[in-house]
Amino acid sequence: MSNKASTQKNKMWGGRFADQPDAVMEAINASISYDKRLWRQDIAGSKAHAAMLAHKNIISKQDYVDILKGLDQIVDEIETDKFTFSAALEDIHMNIEQRLTEIIGPAAGRLHTARSRNDQVATDTKLWLRDVTDHTIKLLTDIQKIILKRAEDYADAVIPGFTHLQTAQPVTFGHHLMAYYEMFERDKTRFIDARARANESPLGAAALAGTVYDTDRFMTAEALEFDRPSRNSLDSVSDRDFALEYMAAAAIAAGHMSRFAEEIVIWMTPQFGFVSLSDQWTTGSSIMPQKKNPDAAELVRAKTGRINGNLIALLTVIKGLPLAYSKDMQEDKEALFDTVDHLELALTAMRGMLSDLKANTDKMRHAANAGFSVATDLADWLVKSLGLPFRQAHHVTGALVKYAEDHNLTLDQIPLAEMQKIEPNITEDIYHVLTVDASVAARQSYGGTAPDQVRLQIKERKLCL
Amino acid sequence: MSNKASTQKNKMWGGRFADQPDAVMEAINASISYDKRLWRQDIAGSKAHAAMLAHKNIISKQDYVDILKGLDQIVDEIETDKFTFSAALEDIHMNIEQRLTEIIGPAAGRLHTARSRNDQVATDTKLWLRDVTDHTIKLLTDIQKIILKRAEDYADAVIPGFTHLQTAQPVTFGHHLMAYYEMFERDKTRFIDARARANESPLGAAALAGTVYDTDRFMTAEALEFDRPSRNSLDSVSDRDFALEYMAAAAIAAGHMSRFAEEIVIWMTPQFGFVSLSDQWTTGSSIMPQKKNPDAAELVRAKTGRINGNLIALLTVIKGLPLAYSKDMQEDKEALFDTVDHLELALTAMRGMLSDLKANTDKMRHAANAGFSVATDLADWLVKSLGLPFRQAHHVTGALVKYAEDHNLTLDQIPLAEMQKIEPNITEDIYHVLTVDASVAARQSYGGTAPDQVRLQIKERKLCL
Amino acid sequence: MSNKASTQKNKMWGGRFADQPDAVMEAINASISYDKRLWRQDIAGSKAHAAMLAHKNIISKQDYVDILKGLDQIVDEIETDKFTFSAALEDIHMNIEQRLTEIIGPAAGRLHTARSRNDQVATDTKLWLRDVTDHTIKLLTDIQKIILKRAEDYADAVIPGFTHLQTAQPVTFGHHLMAYYEMFERDKTRFIDARARANESPLGAAALAGTVYDTDRFMTAEALEFDRPSRNSLDSVSDRDFALEYMAAAAIAAGHMSRFAEEIVIWMTPQFGFVSLSDQWTTGSSIMPQKKNPDAAELVRAKTGRINGNLIALLTVIKGLPLAYSKDMQEDKEALFDTVDHLELALTAMRGMLSDLKANTDKMRHAANAGFSVATDLADWLVKSLGLPFRQAHHVTGALVKYAEDHNLTLDQIPLAEMQKIEPNITEDIYHVLTVDASVAARQSYGGTAPDQVRLQIKERKLCL
Amino acid sequence: MSNKASTQKNKMWGGRFADQPDAVMEAINASISYDKRLWRQDIAGSKAHAAMLAHKNIISKQDYVDILKGLDQIVDEIETDKFTFSAALEDIHMNIEQRLTEIIGPAAGRLHTARSRNDQVATDTKLWLRDVTDHTIKLLTDIQKIILKRAEDYADAVIPGFTHLQTAQPVTFGHHLMAYYEMFERDKTRFIDARARANESPLGAAALAGTVYDTDRFMTAEALEFDRPSRNSLDSVSDRDFALEYMAAAAIAAGHMSRFAEEIVIWMTPQFGFVSLSDQWTTGSSIMPQKKNPDAAELVRAKTGRINGNLIALLTVIKGLPLAYSKDMQEDKEALFDTVDHLELALTAMRGMLSDLKANTDKMRHAANAGFSVATDLADWLVKSLGLPFRQAHHVTGALVKYAEDHNLTLDQIPLAEMQKIEPNITEDIYHVLTVDASVAARQSYGGTAPDQVRLQIKERKLCL
Repeated sequence: MSNKASTQKNKMWGGRFADQPDAVMEAINASISYDKRLWRQDIAGSKAHAAMLAHKNIISKQDYVDILKGLDQIVDEIETDKFTFSAALEDIHMNIEQRLTEIIGPAAGRLHTARSRNDQVATDTKLWLRDVTDHTIKLLTDIQKIILKRAEDYADAVIPGFTHLQTAQPVTFGHHLMAYYEMFERDKTRFIDARARANESPLGAAALAGTVYDTDRFMTAEALEFDRPSRNSLDSVSDRDFALEYMAAAAIAAGHMSRFAEEIVIWMTPQFGFVSLSDQWTTGSSIMPQKKNPDAAELVRAKTGRINGNLIALLTVIKGLPLAYSKDMQEDKEALFDTVDHLELALTAMRGMLSDLKANTDKMRHAANAGFSVATDLADWLVKSLGLPFRQAHHVTGALVKYAEDHNLTLDQIPLAEMQKIEPNITEDIYHVLTVDASVAARQSYGGTAPDQVRLQIKERKLCL
Repeated sequence: MSNKASTQKNKMWGGRFADQPDAVMEAINASISYDKRLWRQDIAGSKAHAAMLAHKNIISKQDYVDILKGLDQIVDEIETDKFTFSAALEDIHMNIEQRLTEIIGPAAGRLHTARSRNDQVATDTKLWLRDVTDHTIKLLTDIQKIILKRAEDYADAVIPGFTHLQTAQPVTFGHHLMAYYEMFERDKTRFIDARARANESPLGAAALAGTVYDTDRFMTAEALEFDRPSRNSLDSVSDRDFALEYMAAAAIAAGHMSRFAEEIVIWMTPQFGFVSLSDQWTTGSSIMPQKKNPDAAELVRAKTGRINGNLIALLTVIKGLPLAYSKDMQEDKEALFDTVDHLELALTAMRGMLSDLKANTDKMRHAANAGFSVATDLADWLVKSLGLPFRQAHHVTGALVKYAEDHNLTLDQIPLAEMQKIEPNITEDIYHVLTVDASVAARQSYGGTAPDQVRLQIKERKLCL
Repeated sequence: MSNKASTQKNKMWGGRFADQPDAVMEAINASISYDKRLWRQDIAGSKAHAAMLAHKNIISKQDYVDILKGLDQIVDEIETDKFTFSAALEDIHMNIEQRLTEIIGPAAGRLHTARSRNDQVATDTKLWLRDVTDHTIKLLTDIQKIILKRAEDYADAVIPGFTHLQTAQPVTFGHHLMAYYEMFERDKTRFIDARARANESPLGAAALAGTVYDTDRFMTAEALEFDRPSRNSLDSVSDRDFALEYMAAAAIAAGHMSRFAEEIVIWMTPQFGFVSLSDQWTTGSSIMPQKKNPDAAELVRAKTGRINGNLIALLTVIKGLPLAYSKDMQEDKEALFDTVDHLELALTAMRGMLSDLKANTDKMRHAANAGFSVATDLADWLVKSLGLPFRQAHHVTGALVKYAEDHNLTLDQIPLAEMQKIEPNITEDIYHVLTVDASVAARQSYGGTAPDQVRLQIKERKLCL
Repeated sequence: MSNKASTQKNKMWGGRFADQPDAVMEAINASISYDKRLWRQDIAGSKAHAAMLAHKNIISKQDYVDILKGLDQIVDEIETDKFTFSAALEDIHMNIEQRLTEIIGPAAGRLHTARSRNDQVATDTKLWLRDVTDHTIKLLTDIQKIILKRAEDYADAVIPGFTHLQTAQPVTFGHHLMAYYEMFERDKTRFIDARARANESPLGAAALAGTVYDTDRFMTAEALEFDRPSRNSLDSVSDRDFALEYMAAAAIAAGHMSRFAEEIVIWMTPQFGFVSLSDQWTTGSSIMPQKKNPDAAELVRAKTGRINGNLIALLTVIKGLPLAYSKDMQEDKEALFDTVDHLELALTAMRGMLSDLKANTDKMRHAANAGFSVATDLADWLVKSLGLPFRQAHHVTGALVKYAEDHNLTLDQIPLAEMQKIEPNITEDIYHVLTVDASVAARQSYGGTAPDQVRLQIKERKLCL
C-alpha cells in the first residue's frame, strides 16, 4: 500500500523535475508557455523595426521585403495553428526569429540589428497592454452606460440608505447605482492616465546602452502609434511601471466591484430580497427551487484576492533590483496577464449582472419605511419650520420615536394630538416630511438623493460619455 | 521566579485592556490619537462651511462671526499646545466641536447643520492629502534637479553597464543617473494625476444622502480650492480612492528608490568601490575606520516593505464593504499617514544622498574596461566596416576574445597582425572602437549612452522642469 | 491667501525635515521611539549576560554586583517615568548602556563584552514576542471558553445554515459557534508551534561570528528560559522568522475573526435581526433609537487589513537581504508591534462581543423554517424509507416543493393525500422529518449539527482545554 | 488602418467573451481547467467513501464493486489521456461522477450519498496538499544534506563576514552555508507542523451540516491516512487554513532562498568573484565569453514575488466570508497550485545550484584579509591579554588601524616597535590574532565561526537528519 502511495506521489509532481538539472533550468528559464501570447505584438514591432532599418539603409530593400513576407507567413502559421512553439527556444522572440531564419535565411539575422531582446520584450508587452487597456476602458464605459439606464429605471425607487449596514436614511436606488458610476469613472480615468504615461517606445534602446547604428527611433515609435520614443535606454529596458500602474488601477477597480458584488450577495438573501438575478448569473439546486446562488457575484468579489496578490507580486519582484535588465523581470508577465484576464472577466460578469439585475422595489420600499428612517427629516422639520435649536429638535424627535416604538407605529402614524403633547407647535405640515418619498425628494442638495438630482446627474453624465 | 515573570508580563501588555469592555471599546473605536493630525484641515473646512451657511441664510451672520472667532481661538490653542484632546470625544471633529461649544455656546451646534462627520472626515483627509501630495511632488522635483546636476558632473564618466549584475557594455554614469530621472518623472506625473482626480469636495454630502437645506456646495468647494463638488453623496462618503491612488503611486516610487538604494549598497562595498557617501549618510565603527555602513540607503530600501504593506492594508479593508460609510473605513488613516511619512522620509534621504554621493571614477572606469565589455562594439565594427553578416561577425569576435583571454590582454591590446590571422580584412581603424570611451561615444541613438546624448537629455529635461 | 496656504503647508510637514541632512539621518536611523518598548527585555538579557560573564570570570564579581544594582535602578527610573530617552542615542540598548555608565562608571562598558547590538536586539525581540505569544494564546483560550458556554446556551437553537449566504439546511446556533472553536483551536496551536520554534537564544552570537571569549551560551539561554542557544551565529543575527511566523499566524487568525465579524454585522441588520449586542459594543444615534451600529465588529473585520499589510511589509523587507545584519532589519519592529497590538485588540473585542451577544432565537428559527430548508431531509427520507434511487427522490422532492410553493405552504403543511398523488408510497411518517428540529436532530454523523453531537463536541473540548 | 487595428484587438482578447452571458458565466464559474489536477485524490476519496458506505450497508456490496471497477477504469482513462474533461461539467468531481454514471449506471449516483461537493473538494485538496507537503519537506532535506556536504568542503575557507554588505569580521564559508541549514530547518519543521495540523478528514461533513445517514467518518479518515475526522461540519467545508498555512510557510522559505540567491548574484559579479556556477545554472553570451548570467539565481529570487502575492490573494479572499461554503473559496486553488509549483521549482533550482557552486577560495580569502577585518580581534587581545578597559582598547586599535592605513599596511604588517609606540605593553603574541585564520579559529563560542565549531554543528546536524 505504501509502495503504491509513493508511486502516486511521483506521478503527481515527480515527473516534472527529474534529476537532470538541465530540465530544471529549462523549466525555470523558459517563458514561451506564457509569452507566446505576445506573438502578434512581437511581429508588429519587427515590421516597424525592419521598415526603419530599410529606410535608414541599415538593411537592404530586398531584406526588408523578405522579412515582411516571412513575418506574414508566420502570422498565417500561428493563426492557423501550424506554428510549433519550442521551450528550448525559450521565448516568443527566439521562436519567431528562428522560424523566420528557416523561411528567409540569413536576412532574418539582420532584423536583429540595433535592437535586443531587452527592448523587444518591453515593446511587445507595452503594445499588448495598450490594447488591453483600451479594452478595459471600453468595458468600464459599457458598465457606465448600463448604470445610466438602470439608474433611470430606478430613479424613484426608494431603498434604505445604510451606514454600518444599518438603515440610516432612505435613498433612491438610482442614486445608489450612480455612486458606482462615479467609482468606475475614476477607474476609467486612471486607466486613461496610465495608458498615456506608458505610451513611449522602448524599441531601439537595444540591450541597455542604445546602439551605434544610425537609427530613427521616432519613426518606429510613430509606426507603432507610440507618442514618442523613450528618453533613456537604461530606463527603457528596466522599467515595468506600465505594468504596475495598470495592476494598481485594476486593484482599485476590483475593490469597487467587490463592494457591488457584496451588496448583490446580501441583497439576494431571503432576508433582504431586494434584487434578483436570472438563471444566467446564478446557480440553482434541483431540490430547493427558491435557492439562487449568486456565484457570479461571489467570484467577482473574490477576484480582488488575485488582483491584489499580483500587484504585490510584481512590486516585490521590482524591489531592490539593480539596473538594467535582470532575469527577475521575466516574472512580470504571468502576474500582469492574470490580472488582465481576471479583471476583464470580472468586468464582463459585472456588466452582465447589471443588465440582468431586477429590483424588488416593494421589498426595498418596505425596508426603507421601517426603522424610523425619516427621523432625521422630522428633526430637520423642527429646526426649519419651528426654529428649534438642533439640540432641542433632537430631543423632541427622540421622544416621538420612543412614542412610536412603544405603540408600534411608524412616525407618520402618530396622531397630531400626541405629537403636540410633546411639542405643542407641531402642525399638520409635519406629515409631509414623514414619508420616505418626501424624505428623498427633499434632499435636493447637489449630489443628493432626490430623484431630480439623480436625473440631473444622469443627464450630465450622458453628455460626457 | 515564575511568579515574578508573570507579573512582568502583566505589566507589559496587561494594563492596556483590563476587563472593562468599555475600555476596549474606547480603544478600538477612538481615532483621536492619530486623526488630530487633521485639525488644521478640519477647521479650514468648518470655516468654509460656516461662510456658506451664512451666505445662504441657514445660520445668522452673528453665528458666523462667533464661529469664526471660536475657531480662531482653537487654532491658537492647538498651536500653543493648550488644547486638550480627549479620547472620550473619539475624533478630531468632536474634539473641536465640543471645544467650540464651550467657547461660543449653542451656535457651535448650528455649524453642524447640513453636514455630518462622514463628509467632514472625507473632506479633511482630502485636504490634508492634497497638501501632502504637493510636497511629495516638490521632493521629487528637488531630486530631479539634483540628478540633472550630478548627471552633468558625470556625463563622461564611464561605468560598467550591467545586466544580471554582470558587466554588459560600458555606459556613462550620467546616463545611469538620468535613468532615475525618468522613473521619478513618471512618479511625479502619477502624483499629479492623483491630485487632480481627487480634487472634488465631499463637503455637504452629509451623512450619505445629501441634505434638505438649501446649501451651495460649489461655494464651499471653491473656498477650499477644490475643482468642484463631488457628484454623488453616497460615493462621497464611501470613497477612499484618493488614499489608495496616492499609496499605489508611493509604492511604485518606493520601488524605484529601493533600486537606487540597492545600487548604492552594492557600489559602496570594498569590492565595487564605485561611490562613497560622507559621514552624514553613513554610520561608522570606531575600530574599523574604513567601514562606512550605508544605513540610510538600507533604510530607504527597506521602506518599500511598509509602503507595499500599507497599500495592501487599505485594499483589504475596502474589499467587500457595502455602501455607504462603515466603521472599517476609519482604518484608512494610519495606513495613509504611515505611507506619507515614510515615503517623504525616504525621498528626503534620497535627495540628501544624491547630493552627497561622490563617484570614484577611476574604479568605475577600471571595472568598465574589464571583461571585454567592448566585444559588442568589435562585432558591430565588423558588420558596419567589413560588411560581415552578423552571425559571422559574432564568430570572429568570439575568436578574438578567446585570443585576448588566453594571452591576458584587453581587446585593444591584441596586435593587428594577430587580428588579421583571424579576419584578414581588419584594419587599424578597429582600434578606434575598442576603448570604453569610444564605445559610449558611439551610442548616439536617441536615448543612448553617448555623452552628447546624455547632455541633450539633460538640456531637454531642464526646459521642462 | 496663497501665502497663508503655503505657510500652512510648511507647518504641517515642513518642520520635520529641514535642510540639515543630520536631522534626516537621525529621523531615518533612530529606533528609540518604538524600541523603547523592549526595555524590560533588554535589562533581563543584560542581567543574564552579566551573570554568565561573572560566572566565567570574564568580569569581576564586583562589576557584576554593580551592573545588577545599576540595572535595577534603571528599571525603577523607567517604571516611575524618570528615565529620559534620547534619539541621539538611537536605540534602547544605547540608551540603557549610557545611563548605566552614568550610574556605575566603566563597569558598564564591560557588560558589552562578548555580545553586540545585533544579538542583543534579536534576544530582546524574541523575549518580548514570547511573552506576547503567551498572551495571545491566553486570549484565544478565553474566547474558546466563552464559545463553549455560548454553544451550550444555544445547542438547540435552530438557525439557517447558509451556503452562498442563501439558506441551505437548518443548523443549530451552537454548532455554528463551535465552528469558530475549531478555527481558534488551529490558530492557538499555530501560535504554540511558533513559540516553540522561536525559543532559541541568539545571545552571545555577538556581531555575527561568535566571540573569542570563553562564554557559556547555554547558561544565558537557561536563565532567560530559552530551550537552547541558537546554533549558528550568522543566522542568529539575521533571522526574523520568529516575527514572520507570528505575523502569519496572526493574519490567519484575523481572517477567522473577520468572518465572525462579518456575520455579526449581517445578523444585526434589521432584515436579519438574528443577534443583538448591548450598548457596550455598539454605537447609537440620538434620534434613531433602534440604530445600533456594530462598530466593534466592523473594526475587528477591518483589522485584517493592517495585519495582512504588516506581514507583507516584513516579507518584503527580508526579500533579497544578504547575510548577516543589514539596517533594513530594523524595519521589523513597527510592523510586528502593530500586528501584536491590533490582533490583541481585536481578540479582546471579539471576546467581549461573544460574551455579550444575545441571539434572537425566534427570528433565527423563523428564518430557518422559510425557504424549504428541509427539502434535503424530504429527499433523504424517500431514499431511506422508500428505497427510491437518489435521482428519483430528487424528482419527487422537486414536485412537492413546487406544490408547496404554488399553494404558499411549508413542506410539512402539504396534506398527505396531495403528497401521495405525487408518490403513492409516502406515509404519515414523512412529517417527522419535515421540521427544522427534526432536520437538525437527524444529523447525527460525527461533527454533524444535531444538538447531541454539538453537546458531545462541547464535552470533548472541555476535557482538553 | 484603424479597422484593421480593431480587428486585431478583437482577435487578441475579444473572442473569449462574446456577448452571450452564458459563456461568461461558464468562464467565471468552471474550475475544471485547474482542479482536474486533483483527479487522483478525488478518486481515492471516492473509493474510501464507497468502502465505508458498503461497510455500513448504506450501499450494496454490488454497488461497491461496480463503483470500484468504474473508478479504476477512469484512472486508466486519465492516465492514458483518453478521458475528456468538460467545462460544462464545471469541476473534477462532476467530470468523474458523470463518467462513472456512463460506465456503471445509477450506482454512480449512490456514491454521492452522505457527502457533497463541499466536503469532497476540501478532502481532495487536503490529500493533494499533504502529498505535496511531503515532497516539499523532502526537497528541503535534500538541500540540507547538500549544505552539510558543502559546509564540510569549506569548513576552513575564509570569507568576509558582512554586515551592511561591508566587511565586518572574517568568517568561514562553511559557517555561512550552515546559516542556511538553520533557516531551512525552521522551514522544514514549519511544513511538518502544518501537515500535522491539517491532517483531519472533512469527508462526510456533507454540504455543511453533516448527514442523516449512519456513516463512519473515522473509517474513511483512516483509509485516507488522516489522523481523525474533523470535528465540526460547518468548519470542515469552510476551512482553508491548511492552504494558507502552507502558503505562509512557503513565503518565509522563499524569503530565505531569495537571500541566498541575492548572495549568489553578488558573489558572481566580476568585482566579487567569490563563486562560480557551471553552464547548467547560468546563461552565457556568444561574444562575451566571460559573461555568466546567474539566471537561475535571479529567478529563484524573483519567485518570492508570486509566493507573497498568492498568500495575499487567499488571505484577501477569506476576509469577511460568512460561513459556510461561498463560491469565493473556489479561488483558493490556483493561488495554492501556483505557490506549490514555484516553491518546488525554486527549491529544485536551489538544490542544483548548491551542488554545482564552486567557491573561489583565493578571492574570498583575499577579500577577508582586506579592510582591517581583524581589528576586533586586536581590540579583544588588548582587553584579554593586557587587561585594558574596552574603551581604551578601542582607542589603541583605532590608532593602530590609522597607522596601518597611512602606511598602506595590513595590521599584521605593523612592526612591533611601531605598535609599542602606541601601546608599550604590546608583545609579539599579538601577531597570533592578526590573521584571518587566527580570527576565525578563535571564535569558539557555541555557534561561532571557528572551523571546529562548524564541524561540530555539521556532526550534530547529521545525527538528526
